[in-house]
Amino acid sequence: MARIVVLTEGRTNPSDAKTACGLIRYRRDEVVALLDSTQAGRTAQEVLKVGGAIPIVDSLEKVEADTLVIGIAPAGGNLPAAWKPVLRRAIEKKLTIINGLHYMINDDPEFRDLAAARGVKILDVRRSPDDVTVSKNAARDLDCYRVHTVGNDCNAGKMSSACEIDAELRRRGRKSEFIPTGQTGIMIAGWGIAVDRVISDFVAGATEAMVLSRKEAEFQIIEGQGSLVHPLYSGVTLSLLHGCAPQAMVMCYEAGRDHIRHVKDCKLPPLEELVRLYEKLAAYIYPSRVIAFCANTSSLTAGAAEAEIRTMSERLGIPGTDPYRFGCVKVADAVLEAAEAWKASRRS
Amino acid sequence: MARIVVLTEGRTNPSDAKTACGLIRYRRDEVVALLDSTQAGRTAQEVLKVGGAIPIVDSLEKVEADTLVIGIAPAGGNLPAAWKPVLRRAIEKKLTIINGLHYMINDDPEFRDLAAARGVKILDVRRSPDDVTVSKNAARDLDCYRVHTVGNDCNAGKMSSACEIDAELRRRGRKSEFIPTGQTGIMIAGWGIAVDRVISDFVAGATEAMVLSRKEAEFQIIEGQGSLVHPLYSGVTLSLLHGCAPQAMVMCYEAGRDHIRHVKDCKLPPLEELVRLYEKLAAYIYPSRVIAFCANTSSLTAGAAEAEIRTMSERLGIPGTDPYRFGCVKVADAVLEAAEAWKASRRS
Repeated sequence: MARIVVLTEGRTNPSDAKTACGLIRYRRDEVVALLDSTQAGRTAQEVLKVGGAIPIVDSLEKVEADTLVIGIAPAGGNLPAAWKPVLRRAIEKKLTIINGLHYMINDDPEFRDLAAARGVKILDVRRSPDDVTVSKNAARDLDCYRVHTVGNDCNAGKMSSACEIDAELRRRGRKSEFIPTGQTGIMIAGWGIAVDRVISDFVAGATEAMVLSRKEAEFQIIEGQGSLVHPLYSGVTLSLLHGCAPQAMVMCYEAGRDHIRHVKDCKLPPLEELVRLYEKLAAYIYPSRVIAFCANTSSLTAGAAEAEIRTMSERLGIPGTDPYRFGCVKVADAVLEAAEAWKASRRS
Repeated sequence: MARIVVLTEGRTNPSDAKTACGLIRYRRDEVVALLDSTQAGRTAQEVLKVGGAIPIVDSLEKVEADTLVIGIAPAGGNLPAAWKPVLRRAIEKKLTIINGLHYMINDDPEFRDLAAARGVKILDVRRSPDDVTVSKNAARDLDCYRVHTVGNDCNAGKMSSACEIDAELRRRGRKSEFIPTGQTGIMIAGWGIAVDRVISDFVAGATEAMVLSRKEAEFQIIEGQGSLVHPLYSGVTLSLLHGCAPQAMVMCYEAGRDHIRHVKDCKLPPLEELVRLYEKLAAYIYPSRVIAFCANTSSLTAGAAEAEIRTMSERLGIPGTDPYRFGCVKVADAVLEAAEAWKASRRS
């Protein structure tokens, strides 16, 4: 058990503090505070809509922590320059540093030398392993049932949905593995490869390596990244899709979002169209269906959220849920049913 | 002018020696020999169907060269272990080394130290620049007309076709720029970024940076990579497509090839389907059409090649050619016509 303070200075909101939210949800007992002098005195719940009474503090001196986690995941992955003094102080106080940015703290001589002098460990979890290489297109030959969460945009719930589906299958006694493919997922699961950091030629291969490493599982729930229609990251999405060769996909989206975030003038296509597009591209490697959807309905009232799920379920012809609001029972049912059908089709 | 010996030991064939073939075609006057002890005494023309009397020699001692180029581009990009002594000898003889593999010769202490001691330059052209970052989705806003060569597989003629289209437009006095995105293209043009080596999050951004650096051109002919349906490299292809946001694409393929090369059981879809797929995915960023095709008909007789072009032109409803056999006049005509239509549509 670590005692984690999450650094979100000036960015403690659900969109910017994506990594913080993931840690709060899935390592809740270990998060002792958020560090943001602009929101100090408030609670995580008030600012992030998750995390209950976890306090937001204005200084490292106010918390008893042994670990500092960088709590943001911005495009480009740079460290805000203003955060450097806090990072320095955390190392001086001998906190373990966990970082998911593209910016590698261990590559900064100042921090590296300071950490060495103090005997402090810095984990740059997004760093690509040295031994990644090209795919052998081998995932499709495995016996495990691979479910891949995909989405129409970044920050649409692909990681959370994967965690929730995995948890629901485990509750039912199934041997399921969550396959983390991004920095926050890695911090939650304690292993994995951030595929968006991998040399582009090797992304399918890195994905395949993760899938092969858990091939004894009955189910793999593979975290998606980005979106096929995202102008910045579409290639990461497609290599990941082809590398894991899923039999089934779960479509994730945020209710009410109609444009790609943080990019000018990129309208999101209707979900029906995206479902067909993912199925079409997946099928070049292995036949795959979108069997359920997960909606983030946090901007809606409870009644509107129910209506959203009902309407989308009719439009797409598949079951769906908001995992945080309504649980993952229906999605897990859909996974089990699809897996049975797949096994039957293989026997015949 | 360099005096280049191309190392293709044991692999002097048109498929493996892809980089050698590219250099022979586009830096012909500089290539003095191929180095392959298993084919020594023969000519490039006999073995590669290109290069005329360029001799194949069995030893560095037999040629007066000042530069050694690694002439292969294998999946995974490793240096064959048996090639190391030749590389060592070349450095001892003070030849400049040009390497396009994923394997970085400068990162090997043995070669790096030897090169430093001899004052020899080693160019690892596939190394990613330090300043690549995420795309701003800005290519689509430029005034230049961007033509992207795409394909159904690797080694389908995307680089050669781009070079030939660029050359034909220049012959007509148009201000055209070839945008190299792979190691051989970079060796030919003397600049560029090998996008398949770039961190996957930054591939669209690296592409955009190249496009922006040549934005004053009237035409950009952007070399494609891989294929949307290639299980190993599809993500590189899609990020490149979205990063350059082309108004027009040229479909490249090899006549007679029906499966993806070097991968088990990956049937190629009909070209009509691929044309629609590229157009569909490109359109999420900017409207784009496949306006022509380039076929590699080297396995066919002249008559069969003509029939292939005619049939495919009818099937796809667009003009096409084999650039090496029949020139690029029709494709350049199609580019100019499409560019005029695009300019007219912008004015109205």
